[in-house]
Amino acid sequence: MFTRIDHIGIACRDLDATAAFYRRVYGFEIAHEEVNEEQGVREAMLEVNGTSDGHRTCIQLLEPIRADSPVAKFLDSRGEGVHHIAFGTPDVRGASADVREAGVRVLDAEPRRGTSGSAIAFLHPKDCGGVLTELVQAPEAADPT
Amino acid sequence: MFTRIDHIGIACRDLDATAAFYRRVYGFEIAHEEVNEEQGVREAMLEVNGTSDGHRTCIQLLEPIRADSPVAKFLDSRGEGVHHIAFGTPDVRGASADVREAGVRVLDAEPRRGTSGSAIAFLHPKDCGGVLTELVQAPEAADPT
Repeated sequence: MFTRIDHIGIACRDLDATAAFYRRVYGFEIAHEEVNEEQGVREAMLEVNGTSDGHRTCIQLLEPIRADSPVAKFLDSRGEGVHHIAFGTPDVRGASADVREAGVRVLDAEPRRGTSGSAIAFLHPKDCGGVLTELVQAPEAADPT
Repeated sequence: MFTRIDHIGIACRDLDATAAFYRRVYGFEIAHEEVNEEQGVREAMLEVNGTSDGHRTCIQLLEPIRADSPVAKFLDSRGEGVHHIAFGTPDVRGASADVREAGVRVLDAEPRRGTSGSAIAFLHPKDCGGVLTELVQAPEAADPT
C-alpha cells in the first residue's frame, strides 16, 4: 500500500538559493517547479533516485509565498529544515481510510491537489511520532502502473 | 556521486513502540536492528523501497541509550521527529572531500562506522539549510556494484 518514500519536504527561506546549493553540492537537478497557491508555497522537486515501484524519490524544497502559510509558520517557529516526509501509494483514498482506521488523524477529509497534479493527504504529526507525514498518489499521466 | 536517499533518521523515545507503529500503520518491517555504542543509540532500519542504484531506502528509528547522546539532546530540545536525512554514495571518502571542497563542513574528519558496517560522515546542518545530512557508503557485502 505504501510503496516508496516519495519525497522529503524541506522548508527554506530562499528556494532559488537552496536549489542552487543542492545542485552545486550534490548534483541534484530541478525536475519540476510550481506555485501552490492553496498551500501558500513555491516549490521545486529535485530528483534523487528511481524507486522499485516505478516512480522516484525527490527532495522537495518549499518557500512560503505569504506570511500566513503553514510553511511560513514552520520557519518562524523551527527555522529552516525538514518539514515533512511523504510516502507514495497507488491509492491515496484507500490509504487514508486505512490509516484513519488504524487510529491516525488524517488532516484532509478528501485528498487534495499536490505537486504536478498528484493527490495528497496529510496525517497529524502528533499521531505519527512528531513526523508530519504526507501520503501521495502520483498523477495518472506520471503513473506507469 | 549521490545516488539515492539512503534513509530518513527519526528520533524517538521508544524504539519498539515506534517500530510497531510503522509496522501496523504502513506495513514496514524491521530489516535490521543494532546498538551503536559510539553514537549512544539503539536503532532499527525499516525497508520502504528499492532504489535505482541497486540499494534501498529505509526509515531509521533512533532511540538514545544514554542521556548525553546527540539523539537524547535532540529529543530534549526538539522532541520526537525527523533527526537527519542520508544520501547514499559509492565512495563516502571522495564524496566527503567533494562537499568539503564545496564549502560544507564535514563533521567527521574520517568516515566512521554506521549501520550494518556502512561508512558514514555527517555534514554540518548550518551549512545545509538546517538539515543534518549524512553521507552513507553501503558495506561491501551489501553493495552490488
